[in-house]
Amino acid sequence: MSPPSSSSSQQTTLRIGIIGFGPFAQFLAKTLMKQGHFISATSRSDYSDLCTNLGILFFRDIGAFLESDNDIIMISTSILSLSRVVESIPFHCLKRPTLFIDVLSVKEHPKDVLLRILPEECDLLCTHPMFGPESGKDGWTDLTFMYDMVRIRDQHLCSSFLQIFSTEGCKMLEMTCEEHDRLAARSQFLTHTIGRILVEMEVESTPIDTKGFQKLVQVKESSAKDSFDLFSGLFIHNRFARQQMKNLEVAIEKLQERSKELQDPIISKL
Amino acid sequence: MSPPSSSSSQQTTLRIGIIGFGPFAQFLAKTLMKQGHFISATSRSDYSDLCTNLGILFFRDIGAFLESDNDIIMISTSILSLSRVVESIPFHCLKRPTLFIDVLSVKEHPKDVLLRILPEECDLLCTHPMFGPESGKDGWTDLTFMYDMVRIRDQHLCSSFLQIFSTEGCKMLEMTCEEHDRLAARSQFLTHTIGRILVEMEVESTPIDTKGFQKLVQVKESSAKDSFDLFSGLFIHNRFARQQMKNLEVAIEKLQERSKELQDPIISKL
Repeated sequence: MSPPSSSSSQQTTLRIGIIGFGPFAQFLAKTLMKQGHFISATSRSDYSDLCTNLGILFFRDIGAFLESDNDIIMISTSILSLSRVVESIPFHCLKRPTLFIDVLSVKEHPKDVLLRILPEECDLLCTHPMFGPESGKDGWTDLTFMYDMVRIRDQHLCSSFLQIFSTEGCKMLEMTCEEHDRLAARSQFLTHTIGRILVEMEVESTPIDTKGFQKLVQVKESSAKDSFDLFSGLFIHNRFARQQMKNLEVAIEKLQERSKELQDPIISKL
Repeated sequence: MSPPSSSSSQQTTLRIGIIGFGPFAQFLAKTLMKQGHFISATSRSDYSDLCTNLGILFFRDIGAFLESDNDIIMISTSILSLSRVVESIPFHCLKRPTLFIDVLSVKEHPKDVLLRILPEECDLLCTHPMFGPESGKDGWTDLTFMYDMVRIRDQHLCSSFLQIFSTEGCKMLEMTCEEHDRLAARSQFLTHTIGRILVEMEVESTPIDTKGFQKLVQVKESSAKDSFDLFSGLFIHNRFARQQMKNLEVAIEKLQERSKELQDPIISKL
């Protein structure tokens, strides 16, 4: 029954335990399993039946989960619940130094929390697979996998994990958590913000859609599938997000001011 | 030299005069000519050389333009300059009742202005070809052509004009100017607003773009190609636009409020 632990063979079979088994973790787990890794999971909700069907060992008790001896523990909670979950982990149950990996959509926050709370002997890899069940449904080729080797001493174990994503064809992008959050505020967070605004405005297709508007409807529909918790997490726990929100408000004010200036008919062209 | 005037043959050759010969009119003129219609133009700027190259008769003097005897006069000014231009047309130079057509991106405003100023014996067709040089560069198949037969007595002449667009495969959509503006505020104007906001924020691609963000970059680049005058015209002269702008601001406020409520860690999920 017991699968081999990490070894120095070309394709190492890893024992990966997942904390937080929501839709994103389930999506990742399918590919991890396809590649032959041994997966276990624990979560606040009971995913016993789902895990049984997938061939994943599910633990209701996080202590028993930690004692089951994983090479890697992947943290896939919501951004908002991360601190509380990590603070509740009974690290004394770990049998040996373990590589902790998070897959959250903000990076400085989990890095800070985990560096503060993880046992010193545990390694830490912060990652952001920049895709999900929708964008990654036809495979992961050319989709971006960002990572920051925050505290890595077991290079081989870390490489074995990264290899999972490079094998699938991901664009592997090493950058600091800070640089990620700075860029993500300007791109991913802004997209979620616009999408949420369009959800709030109840934007719908019309009989006179332009091509540009059709793209906005797609952005809105994609946001509507994500939880509001995700948006809030991106907003609250990326320190660059607040400035983006301000920039957005300032841009709207400027637009209206410039338009009002033009309303005074000084400028008139044929 | 003189082409035949409108007749009752299947494919009527029309004499179409265009007032306002900017990029959008030039874009439309190419297809009108391809279909064999006779095109003349006048504009505040001097397009003599461009028109000579295209085989279009260009008039610097609007009086001479009106005297040149067109079946149809198409108005393609900017939204902001419409009133001033129409007020300056020396209608006494017209030799006969003429069908006036506008192609502006708002519809109630030109309808109101033209009904107020046009000679009573002239017909009026208000239209919005909902595409342009970019979206229509590979043909007009399935692109929407909206029209409102505001005051049509010469049905044959009006049909001959509409046939130009149906022949090209456009989706022909008859609706009132009011209904157009109501729908366009929720779709086209909102798209221009978001696009202009993204221009103002100087949004650019990043190394970690998501697919959703790439769509927003496309919307931004499309807006950057349009003049700010167009945005202002859509904002000022569509009476439903101001409400959309308010809705947008309210949506942003709500987002931030809801996020702040979540920041208080009552809700915590594994």
